[in-house]
Amino acid sequence: MTQSRTHNCGELRLADAGKTVTLAGWLENMREVGSNLAFVVLRDFYGTTQVVIESEEMMQAFKPINRESTISVTGVVRERTSKNPKQPTGEIEVVPESVSVLGRCRYNALPFEINRSKEADENQRLKYRYLDLRNPEVKKNIILRSNVVADLRRSMTERGFLEITTPILTSSSPEGARDYLVPARNHPGKFYALPQAPQQFKQLLMTSGFDRYFQIAPCFRDEDARADRSPGEFYQLDMEMAFATQDDVFAVLEDVLPPVFTKYGKYKAASAAPFRRISFRESMDRYGSDKPDLRIDLELTDAACLQDCGFEPFAGQTVKAVVVPDFHKTRKFIDKLCAEAEMLSGGKAYWFRLDENGELVGGISKFVAEKKDEVIEKLGLTKNSFVALAAGKYGAAVKTAGVLRKLLGAQVEGHMDAERYEFCWIVDFPMYEIGEESGELEFCHNPFSMPQGGLEALERAHRGEIDPLTINAYQYDLVCNGVELSSGAVRNHDPEIMIRAFELVGLGEADVKAKFPAMYNAFCYGAPPHAGIAPGVDRMVMLLAGEDSIREVIPFPMNKNAQDLMMDAPSAVDPKQLADVHIAIVEDK
Amino acid sequence: MTQSRTHNCGELRLADAGKTVTLAGWLENMREVGSNLAFVVLRDFYGTTQVVIESEEMMQAFKPINRESTISVTGVVRERTSKNPKQPTGEIEVVPESVSVLGRCRYNALPFEINRSKEADENQRLKYRYLDLRNPEVKKNIILRSNVVADLRRSMTERGFLEITTPILTSSSPEGARDYLVPARNHPGKFYALPQAPQQFKQLLMTSGFDRYFQIAPCFRDEDARADRSPGEFYQLDMEMAFATQDDVFAVLEDVLPPVFTKYGKYKAASAAPFRRISFRESMDRYGSDKPDLRIDLELTDAACLQDCGFEPFAGQTVKAVVVPDFHKTRKFIDKLCAEAEMLSGGKAYWFRLDENGELVGGISKFVAEKKDEVIEKLGLTKNSFVALAAGKYGAAVKTAGVLRKLLGAQVEGHMDAERYEFCWIVDFPMYEIGEESGELEFCHNPFSMPQGGLEALERAHRGEIDPLTINAYQYDLVCNGVELSSGAVRNHDPEIMIRAFELVGLGEADVKAKFPAMYNAFCYGAPPHAGIAPGVDRMVMLLAGEDSIREVIPFPMNKNAQDLMMDAPSAVDPKQLADVHIAIVEDK
Repeated sequence: MTQSRTHNCGELRLADAGKTVTLAGWLENMREVGSNLAFVVLRDFYGTTQVVIESEEMMQAFKPINRESTISVTGVVRERTSKNPKQPTGEIEVVPESVSVLGRCRYNALPFEINRSKEADENQRLKYRYLDLRNPEVKKNIILRSNVVADLRRSMTERGFLEITTPILTSSSPEGARDYLVPARNHPGKFYALPQAPQQFKQLLMTSGFDRYFQIAPCFRDEDARADRSPGEFYQLDMEMAFATQDDVFAVLEDVLPPVFTKYGKYKAASAAPFRRISFRESMDRYGSDKPDLRIDLELTDAACLQDCGFEPFAGQTVKAVVVPDFHKTRKFIDKLCAEAEMLSGGKAYWFRLDENGELVGGISKFVAEKKDEVIEKLGLTKNSFVALAAGKYGAAVKTAGVLRKLLGAQVEGHMDAERYEFCWIVDFPMYEIGEESGELEFCHNPFSMPQGGLEALERAHRGEIDPLTINAYQYDLVCNGVELSSGAVRNHDPEIMIRAFELVGLGEADVKAKFPAMYNAFCYGAPPHAGIAPGVDRMVMLLAGEDSIREVIPFPMNKNAQDLMMDAPSAVDPKQLADVHIAIVEDK
Repeated sequence: MTQSRTHNCGELRLADAGKTVTLAGWLENMREVGSNLAFVVLRDFYGTTQVVIESEEMMQAFKPINRESTISVTGVVRERTSKNPKQPTGEIEVVPESVSVLGRCRYNALPFEINRSKEADENQRLKYRYLDLRNPEVKKNIILRSNVVADLRRSMTERGFLEITTPILTSSSPEGARDYLVPARNHPGKFYALPQAPQQFKQLLMTSGFDRYFQIAPCFRDEDARADRSPGEFYQLDMEMAFATQDDVFAVLEDVLPPVFTKYGKYKAASAAPFRRISFRESMDRYGSDKPDLRIDLELTDAACLQDCGFEPFAGQTVKAVVVPDFHKTRKFIDKLCAEAEMLSGGKAYWFRLDENGELVGGISKFVAEKKDEVIEKLGLTKNSFVALAAGKYGAAVKTAGVLRKLLGAQVEGHMDAERYEFCWIVDFPMYEIGEESGELEFCHNPFSMPQGGLEALERAHRGEIDPLTINAYQYDLVCNGVELSSGAVRNHDPEIMIRAFELVGLGEADVKAKFPAMYNAFCYGAPPHAGIAPGVDRMVMLLAGEDSIREVIPFPMNKNAQDLMMDAPSAVDPKQLADVHIAIVEDK
């Protein structure tokens, strides 16, 4: 007998009838039916078992025990007369011969009902997280997370990836989000920082001769909370491969992720390898987003033909349409749609329809009337087509149209195959852009990604033979159901190419070195080409669990205000602790 | 072709002769034999392959490439005329048709020779860790660690343990070592702390209804470095089981550890389950240590018969002997042994021998002479027996004798079966002791372990019916080859028993609550009995690798002074970063 029991509370079946068993668990509930008859629900990690009290003696033994106390029950398994087919142990019950209290719950009343904890106030839930987690609905997400992570690990290990743990106490990095600082006791005035990601370490591992690295890596960014971002720490499936191309990285994740998604996900279907690859420009053009939800079959259509229709907001602007054929929604629906799109995108939404008689009606139809035939042809309209429109500068127009696409896909039947995981790669991100504020050439995303065309492309741009804005980077995003799971890149491993890339935006070797000195030094000693990515574990588990709040998939999350109310973190510390590490608190004025 | 190669550098065999292949790796060495003949060693993660240059053209292509540059070589595989049976690829060589440089090593000279990096200055090694790790001898420990951790995880998961990740940003704890502090941006004057261990969280998980928890857990203690302790962070195989006894915990590790030790260890034999269980008192008495190296067959013998032999340092003291039969070492050896024992234990070592004629000789033999027969009988001496002795208060005497035992075991042939992993459990640690300074009753080890006998034993001690010093705790150490891998315990999960335990040392409920408020609160809502342990991963890997420095088994270790010289951590940060988190640096006076 291990763990003080013969069986766990989810284990007994009809075949066990007649056995004398010992169970241990939480007294979830006791329902008294008569003076000598009560039904007790005993719960442990594995399930619940019904215990039936039939004697006065047992009644007296059970009655003083508060709910949520832990108890040990020894008794005989018996077939139930009224079975519960929904419950795995629903065919049997246990008639107790003895009960003992192992851990008394002191309180008669709980801060919330265990099995309805998801309805409780979030701060209460987090303060009493040890009660919240007793709710099987809450617990199951934590188990899901654990299983998903274990499977990801197994899968990466099977593919020859080595999990290497990189330091958590490291140095502050000049880029990205705010660092968490840790004052150094032995080095007055100096600080460690918690890593925002193991980016530099994994690149250093490549330079050290490791070939296939991965890590379920803790990352730390001192940013404010969002629904999909917990303050403090989060986890990535961080990976990197030496001598690798973009395709090598894609092949690994296309192999690793779909089985995990279909096995553990709310939906049981996922994209097969290869995932669709969509260039950044095509994605903006067709979906109005660089994280398109490909479960929706609607696309953006170029509506340049409406620029000169006389409708003032379209004049000289990019005009984008989302056409929904066979549309039969009400005017109220349309008004709500446009209002929602405006709120979400910050741009105005317009519309018109071709009615069942082939007449242009509603919205801005009167402006379209003059070009009716051209518009019908260019937008491919049929009777009952609905046309949602957005206009403005290119970026603003596609953004609003992209939001219209998402709303229409979700709200008009037949345009979204929702019950699946649809992956795609967004590729060919531009290396440079003209900065909105500066009006100058700037890096678009990550200055340390490898430019497509390598040194030669940069040299040609330097010589004015090509426009630097046409240079793309080997940079890519992994998107699933409209959620960005990760950015990745083929890294720029060559100091010479780095310096050339920086020179195009008016910087030089000193700037490269200043950003990541260790990596720059290392690359001067012979680095392999390498590429990688780091899909967010928390976001993947959210997608799999179908949860909207990241706190539902973290065992002990902080609240939105970056506090752990259960542990009282952060908290005041002893002045001696501050003195030890050579810091003082600065009172806010 | 993935990762820019058809084969890796450890893969080609005789059967591949004739194939055209592409390899990528580091140019480890180029040995010029003639103007048209050179041997190049190409190295990647998987091994090395010989490339033979036989043409002037190839000579010119290879010659300008600095060692440690990364290159790609395409060529034809050929059987070697002089094979190297020690090298997996030693039967073949590659005759190159083309070579290209992928990542140039800028420098002609390296800070140290890659394959002899272990001989270099440690700070140089750590500063250029990316070069140090290219040394196969250094790299192999990191691979070992990764494989060991992966196997431990697999093994725990197979046994129904769920890996649950607990927070890294948490609250400062009043006990134990110094915490690393992290100032909280949103909460001026308050601090997070990095966890010294996930102890509280795992106990809260038990209280939350989880049944079998484990985690390869990062732990943080701001302590100074030692050979077996890296400053900053270290890892534990942290585990805990609900409703569990000491035996449940033992059974899991007795099942999990030996296969990992024999598979990955330097030695291929390990204790089988069950491991020996030795009470703390017995261990001190027989081995002079609570971490006995059981590979040594020598034991301590009680030599009380020598107390009154007239040798002044023995008078009224505990006298302990280590008897080595059939001893033929020199006087010089004995002098060195005694000096070493004194240095290591801080206590004096004495000795005498029974020579080949049965005469007492050497050391303190003249004092023993009078009681010769008694001593021979009591200590079980035979001709050529050597008797090492220590005396003093009990603790000091057994400590010195324990050191003598270890030294004699290691240095006298035939008393140590060194090539194996010998595990044992040290059990029955006393719950209380008389404090050396206070002279009062104090907790001996962990006040939160469950006292054996539970509430009843405490009540009896309160009533004066038993001496509290006779109460043992359900606390245990796991020891392997004289190295303590971990402490563990059946936890005290019952607030009532906790308060009683504290009252015996003059404390009360307020003190219990003040130490671990979250855990205390949680236990008041019904906690299961639970027990666990947390063997140190770094120490286990050190034992397996046979390394004496913990830095050899960590991918990116800090130096002894808690600095990462490669990343320049800790370092000065921007004043704005300090202002953001409401702290200022205090200049030391």
